[in-house]
Amino acid sequence: DPNLKVFSLNSNLPLAREIAKFIGVELGKCSVTRFSDGEIQINIEESIRGGDVYVIQSTSQPVNENIMELLIMIDALKRASAKTINIVMPYYGYARQDRKARAREPITAKLVATLLETAGATRVICLDLHAPQIQGFFDIPTDHLMGVPILSDYFKSREFQGDIVIVSPDHGGVTRARKMAERLKAPIAIIDKRRPRPNVAEVMNIVGNIEGKIAILIDDIIDTAGTITLAANALIENGASEVYACCTHPVLSGPAIERIQNSKIKELVITNSIALPEEKKIDKIINLSVAPLLGEAIIRVHEEQSVSTLFD
Amino acid sequence: DPNLKVFSLNSNLPLAREIAKFIGVELGKCSVTRFSDGEIQINIEESIRGGDVYVIQSTSQPVNENIMELLIMIDALKRASAKTINIVMPYYGYARQDRKARAREPITAKLVATLLETAGATRVICLDLHAPQIQGFFDIPTDHLMGVPILSDYFKSREFQGDIVIVSPDHGGVTRARKMAERLKAPIAIIDKRRPRPNVAEVMNIVGNIEGKIAILIDDIIDTAGTITLAANALIENGASEVYACCTHPVLSGPAIERIQNSKIKELVITNSIALPEEKKIDKIINLSVAPLLGEAIIRVHEEQSVSTLFD
Ligand SMILES: Nc1ncnc2c1ncn2[C@@H]1O[C@H](COP(=O)(O)O)[C@@H](O)[C@H]1O
Ligand SMILES: Nc1ncnc2c1ncn2[C@@H]1O[C@H](COP(=O)(O)O)[C@@H](O)[C@H]1O
Repeated sequence: DPNLKVFSLNSNLPLAREIAKFIGVELGKCSVTRFSDGEIQINIEESIRGGDVYVIQSTSQPVNENIMELLIMIDALKRASAKTINIVMPYYGYARQDRKARAREPITAKLVATLLETAGATRVICLDLHAPQIQGFFDIPTDHLMGVPILSDYFKSREFQGDIVIVSPDHGGVTRARKMAERLKAPIAIIDKRRPRPNVAEVMNIVGNIEGKIAILIDDIIDTAGTITLAANALIENGASEVYACCTHPVLSGPAIERIQNSKIKELVITNSIALPEEKKIDKIINLSVAPLLGEAIIRVHEEQSVSTLFD
Repeated sequence: DPNLKVFSLNSNLPLAREIAKFIGVELGKCSVTRFSDGEIQINIEESIRGGDVYVIQSTSQPVNENIMELLIMIDALKRASAKTINIVMPYYGYARQDRKARAREPITAKLVATLLETAGATRVICLDLHAPQIQGFFDIPTDHLMGVPILSDYFKSREFQGDIVIVSPDHGGVTRARKMAERLKAPIAIIDKRRPRPNVAEVMNIVGNIEGKIAILIDDIIDTAGTITLAANALIENGASEVYACCTHPVLSGPAIERIQNSKIKELVITNSIALPEEKKIDKIINLSVAPLLGEAIIRVHEEQSVSTLFD
């Protein structure tokens, strides 16, 4: 369909190329560069008049640059008479700022949704939002894809000898762990962090039976990797035979790689929702592709079919 | 007035401090930092409920970081029940992307205006917008201040012996040069750049009499300083006795400082609408403060008085 146009901005070009290949289209021609003073310069180099445009951009680090690229691209597409402007965000930056946890805080996840709509986005396709409530921050249609099937399929293919247990590193992630446990027909456990008194180190309590089992920790985002590596070490100390970890979004900022390297985690399984830079590639990390999932979602959205069966 | 609150973000703290001192208030307490992954974290550390808040932020380099800081701050202020949110932008980034010069370009200056309004700004105070039309990109009240009086007063104070002529480096800047010429009771000249044929070097034609005169070049923005230094050298070659240059907004990116250093410009007079980093401070540069102008504008806006008499 000549009306289906897929463009990539700068945050995750390798993933965008894979998605385009999966769909069977060329990436749209555009240049997204910087003027001498750092201002973003966008030139769309082919007509998109009347087209259904899909723009692929993860708002990962540098998050503010990537958000502004996206907003300016949407403005350019709108003024160039695109029929629909569909934003494909494999990673949604600022998702953790989704509520006022303290007085006088911004709710930046909502702000970003409003900015995208104001700029002219007509639909958003997301993957594993930190909180599913973020869908409600948009007044335009959203499609919310899940990484759990991809991560589960990988662990299924490993054909572990021995019992496995799926572990959520905190209470917030239990639903996600539950979904993976169903797919792997395994039980779950939960790490219950408690600070007995202020300024006293947290105690890691493990709810559920992990003794002698292969533990698979699952989270949506691994950022500085503090939580996940402490959890892994606690699991081993409490009798787990091996610990694997997985997440959809490898933010991996600051000390993350060093912590993972030095931890009891045997393998960290991630997806390419955020491009992993060369210097973060270590043997322990297995990188799975979300390109088939996002590519299939784009095709279905474009053909006005349901995307929910993608998870059956 | 306890309801008048002045906050500064990170782009130009020295100017914000000067403005607060001029007005006679303390800067509002807030922390604007970064999470480990580069996301902006804002905490407003005092109540602003029912207050008239003025936020000082130049959207200079790093422009995308500075715009996002501003948008997130506006969101936080709105949710903290500010009565009015007044944005003081000594420099308005993306002002040069104010029209579609080619097909399929964004109009980022308009996008930024829309984003500020959407986030919750209720008024904007600007200084020397690249095009005055940018005021029309806003649906909220704007106040547009001028740097010409400050720059003119400086040159008046120099008490030059000999005739002076005010020179616009291009056709777009003639109105600005005209305003300065009126204040200094001097004639004007215009540099008329022409490219005789494509791929042939531009010829600098000088319209007006500059022979034996002290030439003062005036522009709104000096960015890479290519235009202004070529103009200065052309003026000297064509018989000007000395060349001074001035601008409101010292963007000074890339090779700017080197070019100015190596040019025939005797002195470059700028304002602190954009903070000049240490490494760009050279003897040739004279830095004037816009703090009294912006401070007085804030006082007048807050007292609901006209700001237009600031230019008499
Ligand atoms: N980029 C970030 N890095 C670390 N913490 C964050 C970030 N953004 C927001 N937060 C904090 O993370 C908390 C929300 O995380 P959660 O409880 O897992 O939903 C909030 O208290 C935020 O202040
Ligand atoms: N940050 C920038 N640096 C250099 N040129 C720019 C920048 N932003 C926009 N422009 C270009 O500058 C031109 C407008 O400048 P002007 O003709 O002086 O109004 C447009 O053609 C823009 O493409």
